[in-house]
Amino acid sequence: MPESSIEARVAALLTEHNLQLGIAESCTGGLMGHRLTDVPGCSRFFRGGIVAYSYEIKETLLSVAHQTLLQYGAVSAEVAVQMAIGARQVFHSDYGLSITGIAGPGGGMPGKPVGLTYIALAFDGGTVWQKHIWHGTRAENKNQSVEAALQFLLDTILTGEGALHVGV
Amino acid sequence: MPESSIEARVAALLTEHNLQLGIAESCTGGLMGHRLTDVPGCSRFFRGGIVAYSYEIKETLLSVAHQTLLQYGAVSAEVAVQMAIGARQVFHSDYGLSITGIAGPGGGMPGKPVGLTYIALAFDGGTVWQKHIWHGTRAENKNQSVEAALQFLLDTILTGEGALHVGV
Repeated sequence: MPESSIEARVAALLTEHNLQLGIAESCTGGLMGHRLTDVPGCSRFFRGGIVAYSYEIKETLLSVAHQTLLQYGAVSAEVAVQMAIGARQVFHSDYGLSITGIAGPGGGMPGKPVGLTYIALAFDGGTVWQKHIWHGTRAENKNQSVEAALQFLLDTILTGEGALHVGV
Repeated sequence: MPESSIEARVAALLTEHNLQLGIAESCTGGLMGHRLTDVPGCSRFFRGGIVAYSYEIKETLLSVAHQTLLQYGAVSAEVAVQMAIGARQVFHSDYGLSITGIAGPGGGMPGKPVGLTYIALAFDGGTVWQKHIWHGTRAENKNQSVEAALQFLLDTILTGEGALHVGV
């Protein structure tokens, strides 16, 4: 892991400011936690993660509302935001960061193509989210989602302007 | 991901027998979930995972007993077994698979060297666990832990003889 990796920059920033992070992942399956824990000493800022691969787990562990899942689907801004809020609550962390998407190659549907991914961040001041559509392989889409989520966290902390949409 | 990868073999075996898996990770930080979800269609067997990086999260999300953590430490057979049982319960899965260890380079202590790792598997018939001591880098130790855990799952399902210790 090069020192300039995005996970190293996240680690340095959060540690410097004594901030704690909890995460919730769906399509990335644990990759974001893996990347964050490649940083030695990550327990100073990383409290843990939940990989929620079903409606039921999103509801029971992350308090995503059943009605939201039914109304908007698991891959939606609304669910990403609730996952981020849930992660922040479960892990009693300053930030809750979530990813939900369709990594492919299957799973696409009308209006929700393969590669569609939502990222959300919850913090004391509210929630912000981003939408992406990746066009890579399953592995590439997972990687791009994690890179984007960690960059979103960095941007939001550093500038407060990293969001495409605020206050969902 | 080659078809012969261990995660592909786990996926094929669990899917064939309609078995569900839930996981709990500590030192591997999400790598096991990441590897399992590299397999397209993994939602047929993979229900989710919990990355528990603190005593508190092991207790609140995985029902590991506070006394067990104090008595044996987070990196112990006893905690690995309780994490596996907790994962199986949380995810309502046939199997609960856990990893707890010291990935390094720091974190070693008397009697608990860097690389010490416990793997546990909980299922309807009981619990089994394994102890390993890796000697690689942090990244290598994480990889070896995941490979060993998935092999342990395969061996236990296929032969029932994959365990070094049974019924902790």
